[in-house]
Amino acid sequence: MVAPLKLGIAGLGTVGAEVVRVIARQQKTLAQRCGRGIEVTAVTARSKAKKRGLDLKGVVWAKSPLALANDPNVDCFVELMGGADEPALSAIEAALRAGKSVVTANKALIAKHGTKLAELAERQGAALNFEAAVCAAIPVIKTLREGLAGTDVNRIYGILNGTCNYILTRMEQEGLSFEACLKDAQRLGYAEANPSFDVDGHDTAQKLSILASLAFGTKVAEGAVSVEGISSITPEDLNAAQDLGYRVKLLGVAVRTKTGIEQRVHPTMVPRSSSIAQVMGVTNAVTVDGEGFSPITLVGPGAGAAATAASVVADIADAARGLRALPFGRPVAKLGTTKKAPMERHEGGYYIRLLARDLPGTAATIAARLAEQGISIESIVQRHPDGSREVGTGKKSVPVPVILITYATTEDAVRRALAAVQRDKVISGRPQVIRIEKN
Amino acid sequence: MVAPLKLGIAGLGTVGAEVVRVIARQQKTLAQRCGRGIEVTAVTARSKAKKRGLDLKGVVWAKSPLALANDPNVDCFVELMGGADEPALSAIEAALRAGKSVVTANKALIAKHGTKLAELAERQGAALNFEAAVCAAIPVIKTLREGLAGTDVNRIYGILNGTCNYILTRMEQEGLSFEACLKDAQRLGYAEANPSFDVDGHDTAQKLSILASLAFGTKVAEGAVSVEGISSITPEDLNAAQDLGYRVKLLGVAVRTKTGIEQRVHPTMVPRSSSIAQVMGVTNAVTVDGEGFSPITLVGPGAGAAATAASVVADIADAARGLRALPFGRPVAKLGTTKKAPMERHEGGYYIRLLARDLPGTAATIAARLAEQGISIESIVQRHPDGSREVGTGKKSVPVPVILITYATTEDAVRRALAAVQRDKVISGRPQVIRIEKN
Repeated sequence: MVAPLKLGIAGLGTVGAEVVRVIARQQKTLAQRCGRGIEVTAVTARSKAKKRGLDLKGVVWAKSPLALANDPNVDCFVELMGGADEPALSAIEAALRAGKSVVTANKALIAKHGTKLAELAERQGAALNFEAAVCAAIPVIKTLREGLAGTDVNRIYGILNGTCNYILTRMEQEGLSFEACLKDAQRLGYAEANPSFDVDGHDTAQKLSILASLAFGTKVAEGAVSVEGISSITPEDLNAAQDLGYRVKLLGVAVRTKTGIEQRVHPTMVPRSSSIAQVMGVTNAVTVDGEGFSPITLVGPGAGAAATAASVVADIADAARGLRALPFGRPVAKLGTTKKAPMERHEGGYYIRLLARDLPGTAATIAARLAEQGISIESIVQRHPDGSREVGTGKKSVPVPVILITYATTEDAVRRALAAVQRDKVISGRPQVIRIEKN
Repeated sequence: MVAPLKLGIAGLGTVGAEVVRVIARQQKTLAQRCGRGIEVTAVTARSKAKKRGLDLKGVVWAKSPLALANDPNVDCFVELMGGADEPALSAIEAALRAGKSVVTANKALIAKHGTKLAELAERQGAALNFEAAVCAAIPVIKTLREGLAGTDVNRIYGILNGTCNYILTRMEQEGLSFEACLKDAQRLGYAEANPSFDVDGHDTAQKLSILASLAFGTKVAEGAVSVEGISSITPEDLNAAQDLGYRVKLLGVAVRTKTGIEQRVHPTMVPRSSSIAQVMGVTNAVTVDGEGFSPITLVGPGAGAAATAASVVADIADAARGLRALPFGRPVAKLGTTKKAPMERHEGGYYIRLLARDLPGTAATIAARLAEQGISIESIVQRHPDGSREVGTGKKSVPVPVILITYATTEDAVRRALAAVQRDKVISGRPQVIRIEKN
């Protein structure tokens, strides 16, 4: 029997504590699967005194993450502290430099330093596993890195943030405002006191940048992601989406275009019949469009201690078995670069909601401005509060919502058309624009 | 640079030919991913003369699969011939005995001989990869073997046969009969001239037996699967399912019970809101219920040359990189055994459709017979052709469909209750019984 794999775990929050429990509970099965035991040898965390209900008898308490990474009794460094930079970064670097396997659930760190760390891991022949960094228990990293090793990916997109999907689901199902749902999500612990990282799309952007790197063989480039959050979405948009056969989701989308990899995070209209549209509440989902066959969608829990720990332990088991693919599937020297694709060049269909002033000729004006930019309209719907469906008849003095769905066009054309419509003073307020993603 | 991995491919049907094409097209990427080249060195197929449009210049044509497996110039034997037994079996055994990696897409062979072959692979330290044997491009084998290495699986279920799902989808959407949809499926090439293997559930059973082995750490036991097909399903059942918030799918289900692993294939009522209910047409899906977190569902193409070749090539890439987990995730000596769980002990909810004779007291008689067996009724619906909803009023002499949904009970109780109802002569024909699977 091979010697056991000795783990050093940095971070004993909910995930770290759960990893310690799973390793203990699954001791026998893991030893069978890996052909060797897996032991927690040393740990570290901010507070040693904190009650965690863990049996850490015989486990060394390291004085710092760096000391833990350098402990000669540790074969595999498990980083569960979080934080994009120190102290996690130096500790991971130290472990890799010593040729140790590293397992981390830290998306912020991988999004920021992933390429650099992968290069070090590659040079040292060490594993750098981060399945838990994206979508917790959903094996999306392994699927991209290994399961689709022979497939050209054309597009990858997903619901990568449970908080946003929970809010959008409740807004749709109960007709509530964004603000009301956010408050509820905070009360239930699904959203942070400062919700910006989630609801403004940054969490999704970090995860997307990691997935895009694996899917397209490019260096992780969080800064190349165009990001919009969900705070401007209204129940009216969700209702209109329903009427038109769509549902609104905050998607992270990375797609191969003629000019490079376009990475974007924004509220998106997806066809109600698509797999991704069925994903409700805090659940996550990722769809991969591979060349030559219909898409693969992976659905599951994207957060939570048990779901995250499951992926951490699977990564540890891979390290114990000596399964070791390159961190991003290819040598870092072969990874391409991505620059930020300007959103104005984005091509696709658009949902546009305007509040039209109820004046004669309004519909004609709007249609003309779109036509000037070469935009074809797939459907146009407006509803007077009295239920009639014509605009510009002067029957009411209140603004009337007009909803347009365009055929594929460029974002630039949409922006110019809407600027012209605003100059014409036939609408009130700012137009709402939501991109459409077809499956 | 490590020496290239030299492939011997046995079988050049649609999948084999596509694998040759993908290996050529992805040559550069695969070499980057694996740190070594991958070359097709030798092939064999039934007809050498057949035009396949492949560039096989410099590739040796072996005189038999066995000769190919034994060719000292072959490092990795790729079996794409199909067939549960010879000549595939002996050739795979010869390759493993020589310590060569084996990649196969052959579900029938793995279902029948998987345990024996895994034992040989394990003894020889050779890879035996069969991702393409179940659900083509969906990485379900890798997910169970590696991605959930630290997770206890409680249940795994899925839509594993595209033909059946295509037929059920069309029956539901167009109100057509089973026979009409089967004919269409045959015309479109989705069903074989002899459709029994698909529509009677045997294809699903083979795939399920492989998944159950990986999920529960048991020896593959195709004979332990209880199997029922979809030929008895009527448009009336699909309509009733819709009314009741369900959809009918042919599921393969393997579940941990107090007495062991229950493996079964049968038409199943699944809640319309579940991920699995959204899977339409030829698409496949597998849901894994892991202990401690909400289910993971993998959706995608379960058949087709490109989708199958994608998994074959990924398995080849794993072999080239030296990624090698035990074929069923654990040593064969540690795999448990499963005996066939008697379906009469199955516990769950039931959908029952009866054609009740329109006599006074019929509803009371049926309800009493169920009550005698301790079965609680969640809902009961019957519709006179004239739209009234009462039975036993004597208004009509034609039989009236009565649909019952029970709370969880045992199959044995349901069978006894229905036998009693039949003896009471208050129904016409045989009752339709469909098991319910909650998510």
